[in-house]
Parts: sequence; structure tokens; C-alpha cells
Amino acid sequence: MTSMLDLIHELWFLKRDIVSDGFDQALYRLAEEVPMTLHEVPSGEPCWTWRVPEKWTCHAAYLETLDGRRLLDYADHPLHVVSYSLPFDGEVTREELLRHLHVHPRLPEAIPFVFKYYERDWGLCVSQTLRDGLKDEAYRVVIRTTFEPGSLKVGEVVIPGQSDQAFVVVAHLCHPAMVNDDLSGVVVALEVARALGKHAGPPLQYTYRFLILPETIGSVAYLSRHEELIPKMAGGLFLEMLGNDSPHALQGSFQPDSQPDRCFNAALRSLDPQGYAGPYRTIIDNDERQFNAPGVRVPMLSLSRVQAPKASGLPPYPQYHSSLDTPEIVTQERLEASRDVVLGLIQAWERNQYVVNNFKGEIFCSGYGIWIDYRLNPEGHRRLFEIMERCDGSRTVADIAAELELSFQAAWEVVSLLEEKGLVSFSWIPV
Amino acid sequence: MTSMLDLIHELWFLKRDIVSDGFDQALYRLAEEVPMTLHEVPSGEPCWTWRVPEKWTCHAAYLETLDGRRLLDYADHPLHVVSYSLPFDGEVTREELLRHLHVHPRLPEAIPFVFKYYERDWGLCVSQTLRDGLKDEAYRVVIRTTFEPGSLKVGEVVIPGQSDQAFVVVAHLCHPAMVNDDLSGVVVALEVARALGKHAGPPLQYTYRFLILPETIGSVAYLSRHEELIPKMAGGLFLEMLGNDSPHALQGSFQPDSQPDRCFNAALRSLDPQGYAGPYRTIIDNDERQFNAPGVRVPMLSLSRVQAPKASGLPPYPQYHSSLDTPEIVTQERLEASRDVVLGLIQAWERNQYVVNNFKGEIFCSGYGIWIDYRLNPEGHRRLFEIMERCDGSRTVADIAAELELSFQAAWEVVSLLEEKGLVSFSWIPV
Amino acid sequence: MTSMLDLIHELWFLKRDIVSDGFDQALYRLAEEVPMTLHEVPSGEPCWTWRVPEKWTCHAAYLETLDGRRLLDYADHPLHVVSYSLPFDGEVTREELLRHLHVHPRLPEAIPFVFKYYERDWGLCVSQTLRDGLKDEAYRVVIRTTFEPGSLKVGEVVIPGQSDQAFVVVAHLCHPAMVNDDLSGVVVALEVARALGKHAGPPLQYTYRFLILPETIGSVAYLSRHEELIPKMAGGLFLEMLGNDSPHALQGSFQPDSQPDRCFNAALRSLDPQGYAGPYRTIIDNDERQFNAPGVRVPMLSLSRVQAPKASGLPPYPQYHSSLDTPEIVTQERLEASRDVVLGLIQAWERNQYVVNNFKGEIFCSGYGIWIDYRLNPEGHRRLFEIMERCDGSRTVADIAAELELSFQAAWEVVSLLEEKGLVSFSWIPV
Repeated sequence: MTSMLDLIHELWFLKRDIVSDGFDQALYRLAEEVPMTLHEVPSGEPCWTWRVPEKWTCHAAYLETLDGRRLLDYADHPLHVVSYSLPFDGEVTREELLRHLHVHPRLPEAIPFVFKYYERDWGLCVSQTLRDGLKDEAYRVVIRTTFEPGSLKVGEVVIPGQSDQAFVVVAHLCHPAMVNDDLSGVVVALEVARALGKHAGPPLQYTYRFLILPETIGSVAYLSRHEELIPKMAGGLFLEMLGNDSPHALQGSFQPDSQPDRCFNAALRSLDPQGYAGPYRTIIDNDERQFNAPGVRVPMLSLSRVQAPKASGLPPYPQYHSSLDTPEIVTQERLEASRDVVLGLIQAWERNQYVVNNFKGEIFCSGYGIWIDYRLNPEGHRRLFEIMERCDGSRTVADIAAELELSFQAAWEVVSLLEEKGLVSFSWIPV
Repeated sequence: MTSMLDLIHELWFLKRDIVSDGFDQALYRLAEEVPMTLHEVPSGEPCWTWRVPEKWTCHAAYLETLDGRRLLDYADHPLHVVSYSLPFDGEVTREELLRHLHVHPRLPEAIPFVFKYYERDWGLCVSQTLRDGLKDEAYRVVIRTTFEPGSLKVGEVVIPGQSDQAFVVVAHLCHPAMVNDDLSGVVVALEVARALGKHAGPPLQYTYRFLILPETIGSVAYLSRHEELIPKMAGGLFLEMLGNDSPHALQGSFQPDSQPDRCFNAALRSLDPQGYAGPYRTIIDNDERQFNAPGVRVPMLSLSRVQAPKASGLPPYPQYHSSLDTPEIVTQERLEASRDVVLGLIQAWERNQYVVNNFKGEIFCSGYGIWIDYRLNPEGHRRLFEIMERCDGSRTVADIAAELELSFQAAWEVVSLLEEKGLVSFSWIPV
Repeated sequence: MTSMLDLIHELWFLKRDIVSDGFDQALYRLAEEVPMTLHEVPSGEPCWTWRVPEKWTCHAAYLETLDGRRLLDYADHPLHVVSYSLPFDGEVTREELLRHLHVHPRLPEAIPFVFKYYERDWGLCVSQTLRDGLKDEAYRVVIRTTFEPGSLKVGEVVIPGQSDQAFVVVAHLCHPAMVNDDLSGVVVALEVARALGKHAGPPLQYTYRFLILPETIGSVAYLSRHEELIPKMAGGLFLEMLGNDSPHALQGSFQPDSQPDRCFNAALRSLDPQGYAGPYRTIIDNDERQFNAPGVRVPMLSLSRVQAPKASGLPPYPQYHSSLDTPEIVTQERLEASRDVVLGLIQAWERNQYVVNNFKGEIFCSGYGIWIDYRLNPEGHRRLFEIMERCDGSRTVADIAAELELSFQAAWEVVSLLEEKGLVSFSWIPV
């Protein structure tokens, strides 16, 4: 069993463009680690309003001075060529070259990640420093790319539960030669799948579907090919950017009062006390958009390590979408911490039932050995009673925690104690 | 076709008391401009809890010193006599005279507008200056008024639409010898009716009813005689004070979450960027009260040019309810601007349907040629997606605009583009 | 008919522990004043999750130095022994004695009120001053208490109304040798019952149930023995601490939008302008908890005189739970004022029906003689119209008052005038 960080080292530099041999190679390797079903959709197939792109390959690319001095080479770094660039071969004036030369907006030494899946253009990516040094009148550009029929691939790991109601975990794999965005989310997702697959304790209530796919078009392809599953998706979580040095940021779904939203917001409080939460679309933009969208409307949240919400004007992390997003900036320890946060969220989700009182009036706490003396522990006493009085069959554990601004776990502690004593029962529907 | 300002010049000085020959004369003249149905209700007829007043005529009135020097004459200005004053003829002490002499609270040179429709009293109106000059022991007062059976009149212009669901536009005509309040609202209403009657473009969805009437009792008379129409009134707009120099003020209805409220509030944002909005009863008090009242509950908003809401303590405009409310203070340009605002509100109202997604997931924007590059236009990109993800059959255009704090027109721009592409449809009911 | 203060003088020093001869003696005496039904539940009987305690009697108790100098004697004050203390007889070291010696947290000269109904321990209560003087190595403790089968008693006064829907007033009687907490609430409750029993005016709509009981277990015992009554309890009020020198504090129920909550909050505004309101559990904790609890969910508010909410960190009043809670700190005048507040709340409750408009549009106020001239009384005019336009069959008087932030009485004044004129009717259900 390969560690998350070792998998990253093995796969990160692959040319994992959305439909490409590099993507397939990475996915096959992951499938060796965690057995998965591979779904394929051929190039050109319509998926709702979309169409699956052709397979793209860059065979070689370079920029040279007219006297043959090579300034950059795709062989050195996959980011040097715009993903899905058209082929090009010829001399161009400096002026024209600059129109096709992309640099990073903040990092002068980094090669930026640029993609033009649907724009039909050619382009190269270089450091600001390299571009600033271009003084000649003309240059020679060679980009040898091909577009050919292929197939988009989605890897799916299913961990069955008691119910066919599903919870969906999604990560994308299509960011070539980068690590935190997006490989970190993929390896955490698969570690979580592995842990759930062999977890001890009560059997899982929900069926879990882990999807590893190319961003956006992968989600659209999967959903459009499995419309019958959508009504059974009770919630979801998108994972990405989980190895860098920031607290966990939980982005809400399009439906902020949904049970997954309430449950995860309350659970994160104790899973990462430094963590924070923000509404839909205020932290990141990814596949959760396809699941939250009209006609799907699965409440999917997103978990990532992001230094500050978008409104701050800051990037999610300094090396975002650049050649500096390397294994250097992620650690096994942080990946494991994120895996544990996800497992903690799922544990809360599994426990998040309606709490039905088997009692009337207040419980005789002394008689059940659950009395907390208000003179010794006024906070604990108050919390015990505030939770107890909300156990009425109309509120889930998450509803109670949200109402009291408690962590899910603090509410669960009391509620599960009451359940042990036979004072409450759990129900998947309000009673 | 007479211009709005010319009509004002022609009609403003008429003695347009609520049931009077002057009112009828003005209404008949307007009916020459825009053909209308005239509804009549005879004096004494009960209308819900009300009763139609008698026709009131002031044949002559003056105030003289005992030696025959005339101090004021009704022939000079219709406001000199309290509307619906009882007749009087006799010598009165200075003290008694002062009890019946009304002055303007803020404007020392102006004659105030005072009405006592239901109080049974006599009275004269003068400038503060004139009153301050009254030093004699006694004066002679002559007020020759008559009360006789007549009929209250309501002019109605109907512009039929596809549906019998109606939108009602109301203006009152009963403020004698004044312009901004109320003739300005009347001429704008009729210009709007004229424009709708000959408008190009898609056929109107709603039927429009324009009502020109005496304030309050006119609305009560009309509604009580047409109760069967009330359930088919989907919304309404009261118009008044539209020629003076202030931004547009939109007063909400009694039901602030109604579709007319959401639609007009969002539409005003782009129709008059200087305009502002306020809740029901915070800006003006007029016929919208009868439509919003119990047993009717038509969400009727009000549009006027008012310098500040009532809470400011300021009058709606300086010359309000005085002899200084003359054609001098209104301009054709402002009347036309207000007409255009009303037409813009109606255009939004006509377009305000539920937006039903024909797509699932996010739309493949590039494929439909509607992609907005977030690197070039982040605001436009964000708005495109925020609107798109709310097209789900449960929200009208106005709901989407309200949720995103956008103008109606900005939401419409995106939604109508999606409709052109066949990506959404419109529906008059949620789906 | 004994005055409230005289009853307090007569009963306060009784040893009114929860199941005890003293409690019964007090209850029997009260039943002489106001005839009541006595409900008994034998010791040991299960009541929902609870069980009725045994009767507890303290025959004698004292603390002595080893040379026989008596330091405290139960004969001097019933608070010297922890309520429901186990018996004890023996020499104890100073150290052990201190573990069983309770003092007041704030009042160095007072004996505290301590109870251990369910903890099985022995204990004495003394002043801080006395405890600080204990310097000997050992002392002699004698506590002669007995536990024996008895019966918990609840006194119930029923004042029947037109409907079997009930309003419940609760006060507890089980705080021995104290006055403000709890005897003051009991005597006010019974005075209110007496007043309702002989009240003039329209017949009562609701049936009123006054319950005098031992705290918590008394409510649980009553409710569990009368489950069939619970669905007919429309609301309730708990009374306590009504003789001391503080404004009235009204604590909301668990359901802050309930009709009792809206009604009482609005009514208190004019009944005690110095009074204030706070949410459930923020002011006091008493029997209202059993009524508001899961499986019962009767919206029961609480009325008391409390200097500041719990969040202030202050006790409800300085002498709370101590031997300083004597007849000195309550006055007949304040008890009567509180009785009047409760009667005022009940009056509002009786009047709190849905207001159904018999009119459409606005009312012709002049015609009905209810016109308020906005030039003379703008506030009154505005209020008249704001109330009138909310009389639509969907709002109770309390709803209207809450919406307008008016006192119940101010809304009632207008609404009852409209009812006199036949303009509105009242209904117990929305129409």
C-alpha cells in the first residue's frame, strides 16, 4: 500500500490533460491501489449541453531564437505548452509571439498553468523573467500537438452501505505536473475510500461513491450517463488542495440549510478548530458546481486548505496554478490530517439522524446517572439541558448543533448518551 | 396629440373638486386624448363602508372689510375656498374669522390646499401674510356654495393583453388648481396607456387598466362596483408628483415580497440610478391604500418624485398642497423621463416569468458562444454563472435579480440570451 | 379572606420540603382560602422518567463542640439542614465536617438553601461567619431525619371557561422558610384564581388551571397523571419571586412565536413599562421547563421580579436561596401589583382572537366617527390605519401588536372600537 505522498511523487509530473494518455496512465496506476470501475465516454459524445473533447497529445514543443538557441522545451516541463494548444510551426515576430506567450500573474519565476480546451489557439507558457529577456525581432516556434478520437475516463470506487442513498466524494486529476491542485485531493479521496472499505464499527448507512475525473467535463459526463443515480445522491464533498500549509476551508453548497451543510459545518468546529467555513462559490470553483447545478441540485460542499476566501483577493495558496506547485509544498502529515477530517465529516454524516424522544418532560438525570451539577459545571449543565429539550423527532443532530452553535461532536456526545440509556431513538425521517 | 405639458397648461386651473363640474370637464377633455370608458356612481350611493358625496360648486366667495374693501376673491384662485366648504354669508368678528381661515404651514406667501369633504364646516384659505394683516374688529364673509345630487366619475382605459390577469395603473385628478400633485400623474398615466396601446414587439401578456379618478372615494367606488375584477388584479402602480425636480421614489406595496415589489425594485435600479425605494406608507399616501387594503390586497406600488421619505420630516416637494404648485415647477422633459420609467417597469413586469432550465448541470458556455472569460471580465463571468445556476423553474427573473441584488435588466440580459439559445424557457407558473 | 402578606407571614417558616408534612400543612391551609382539588401520588410511583421521593422529616439536628457547646440547631432555622439530608450521628474531624457544611456563595451572614433530593448525602448549612470560626479538631454532628412512604401533593384550582382549552398557571411551594422564592408566586397565583373566579364582564373563554406543587417533580407528577389534558393546554405562565423590589421580567417560552409569547410580550409593555422580556431559560429555571419540554410542548412563559437576566452574572435578587429571604423583603403593594399584571396578561389572552374584517378597502372613518385628524394627531392617525389594514382574518390582536411593536392594549383599543362599530369580528381560528 503506497503512501499518499509516494503516490504523489510517482504521478505528479505526468501530462494529465483532460483526455490524454497521461491522465489514463495516472488513473490506471491509482486503480492498482484502490480497485475501481472505469467509466469511458468516447470523444465527440454529447453529455447534456457538452461534448467530450478529443484526446490531446503534445509530442514536442520548443521556442528558439532564429539562430537555433533553444529558449524553452516541453520536454523540460509539461506546463510549457497551453493544455489543448493547436499545433504550430513557424517563424513569428516578437510581437506575435508575445500574444501567445503566457506568464504567471504573480510569480515571475514560475511557468503558469494555462488551458484552452475550447478556444482553438496555440500558446506557450514561460516565466516572466524569460519573457522579459526576449529582445529579438523574430523567433521560431514549434508545437507538435495532435487531436484524435479518445475517451474520457472516470474512476469510481463504490463502498456500499445499508441504503442505496449515496454520498459522493469527488476529486479531479487533470492538472498536469502539479500537486496540491489537484493530486492532493485525489490521494486523500482514495485513502478515505480505503479506510471506509475496511472500517470497523457499525455498518455504513450510506453508499459512498468516490469519483476521480477530469474537471467539469468529467462530472458532466458521469452525471449525464447516470441520471438515475442523481435522486439518490443525498450529499457530496469535493476535495482538492489538501497538502499545503493552511487551515481547512469548508465551502457550503448551493443549499446552505441542507443537512450536509449543517452537519459538516458543525462537525468541522471540532475537527479543525483553526478551520473556517464560507458560502457557496466564495472559496473555490470546481466540480461541486456540476452537482449543485440546476437539474442536479445535490448539496455538495468542498473541502480544501485555502489561506483566505476569494474576497480577500489572495490566491488559494501562493503556488496556485504554477510550476511551483510541486511535492515540496505538501506533506504526508497534512494529507493524513485532511484524510482524518474527511473521515470525521463522514462519521458525523453517518450519525446525523433525527433524534426522537422516548421521554416526556425533562429527563430525571440523576436517576439515569447523567446529571451534571450546575454549581460545578454550569456550561455542561446548560448544554445537557439545551440539547435534551431539542430531542423531539423534528430535529437532526446537525439541526440541534446548528441551533446551539455547537460542534456536531458535542451534540452527539449528549445525544448518544441518551440513546445508550434508551431515552432517545434515531430515525432517518422526522417523526 | 397634445403634449403632456400642454394638457397641464390647459387643465390645471380647473376647479377639479372630487365631485364637481370642473372634475368632469377635465376628465372629458382627457377622454378626447385617450378614449376611455366613463364609470359613474350617483351621489349618495353606498360603496363598501363609504357613500358618494354630493356635487359641490362654489359660485362665488370673498372676504371684505366692513367698508367693502375686498381682501380675497374665489374668482382669483380656486384654492381660496376650502373644498366642500359650507356656504356662509355674514359679518364675523376677527376672532371667529381666524378660526375659519387656513394658512400654509411652511409657505407664508402661498394659499394652502384644504379640503373638508366630510366635516361640514366653512372655511377660507389665505396666505400667512394676508392673515397677519387682519387688524379690524370684524369682517364680512361671503361663500356661495351648493351641494346637489351629481355623480362621481372614473375614467378607465383598458389595453387588453393575452391574459385577463390585469395590472392596474391609478392616478387621481381631484386636486384643483395644482399641477405636480396631481395632474402630473394623470398625464403620465395616459401617455403610458397611449404608448402601450400602440406598442410594437411581442403582444402584451397582461391586460392593463388605467384609472383616472378622485382620490380614495374614486378607488373605493370603482373597486366596490367591480369586485369580480379584484381576484384578477395581479399588481398595480399609483402615479403622482412626476414633474418636479427630484429622483424617482418607489414605494413598496403592503406585501413586500410580492412579484410586483421584487420586479419593480430590481427594475428601478437601472431605470433611475438616482432613484430610491421605501416600504409601504413611508413615502406617500394615496389610492394605493385602497388597493392594498383588507378584502382587496392587490400589491400596488407607488411611483413619484419625492425629495425624501416621510421620516425626514420634509414635505414631498416644497410647493406641496399650495398655490405654488403651478406649471412652473414641472417640465416636459421630466414628465417624459417618468413616462419612460413607467414603461420600463411595465416592460420588466411583462418579462417577469419563471425561468425553467432546459439544461442540467452547468451550461457548456463556450459551445453556445456565451462564455465570458473570468480573466478578462471576472464580474461578468461571476454574474453569468450566478444567474445560470438559479434558472431552475422555481424563481422568476425578479426573484433571481432580488437574490443577487442586481437590476432586473441585468438579470434579463443573461436570461434572455439563454432563452435565445433554447437553454431556458419561460413559464407563468413555477414548475 | 386573608391578605397575601398575612398568608406569607403565616406559612413562610414551615418546613415545606418537597414531600413533607410541612408542605402538606401549607397546602391544606391554602385550600381553606381557595378551594382546590388535591392530587396525591404515593412515594415510589414512577412518573415518566422520574419516581416520587419518600416523605422526608427532620426531627432534630445540631452541631456541637465536643464539650457540648451547641453551634447551630435545626430548631432555630429549617435551612440549617440540607433538604433530604441523610441522618447522621457522630464525631467528625473538622476536615470531614467542612465537606458537609454549606455556606452561601455571596452572603456571609446568611444560611444558604441547599437540597440534595437525589444525592444521598448528609449536610448542614451555616453562615460563612460561623464556618470561619470553627477551629477545633473535631465536632459532634446530630441529624435525625427519616425517610418514609408518603405522597406528593398537587393543589389544583380550576376556573372553568367556555372552552375546554386550558391556560395553566403554576407556582411551587417547596422552598422551606423562604418567602420571595417561592411563597410569593403561590399567593399571587391564588389571588389571581380568586379574582378570575368572581370576575365580572364577559364569561371566560379559556379554562384556567392553577397548580400549586413541589418544583419539577410536582409538574412531572401532575402531567404524567393527566396526559389527556396536555393537548388542550394552549399556554401557561409560571409565577415566582413577585414580592421583591425589581421590575417584572417576562421569560418567553421554548416557542418564541407562539400566541402566548406574542400576546404577553405585547401586553407587558403597558402593564409594566419598567418591565422587560427575555428568551426562554435566560431569566429563571423552574417548572416552565417541564411544560415546554419534548412530549409536552405547552408554550409556558414565566413572570418574576428579577433584577437582571442570568447573563448579567447577578442572582435574581440579593437574598436568593438564603435565610435572608424573609417577609421583610416583600410588600403587599408589590404582590398586588404583580397580581394585577397577571390579571392584565390574562385579560389580553382572553381577547387575543383573530381579527376578521367585515369591510373591504379602507374604512370610511369619518362616517363611523372614528377619524383621527393626522394634522392634530399624526401618531394616532398612523396607528389607526396601520392596525386597520392588518385586520384581515390572518392575524390575531397579538400578531398585529407584535408586527407594529405596540402594546397589546393599544392594538386592542383600536380593534375593539372597530368591533363595536361592526367593522370587524373576532374568531378563534384564522379565516
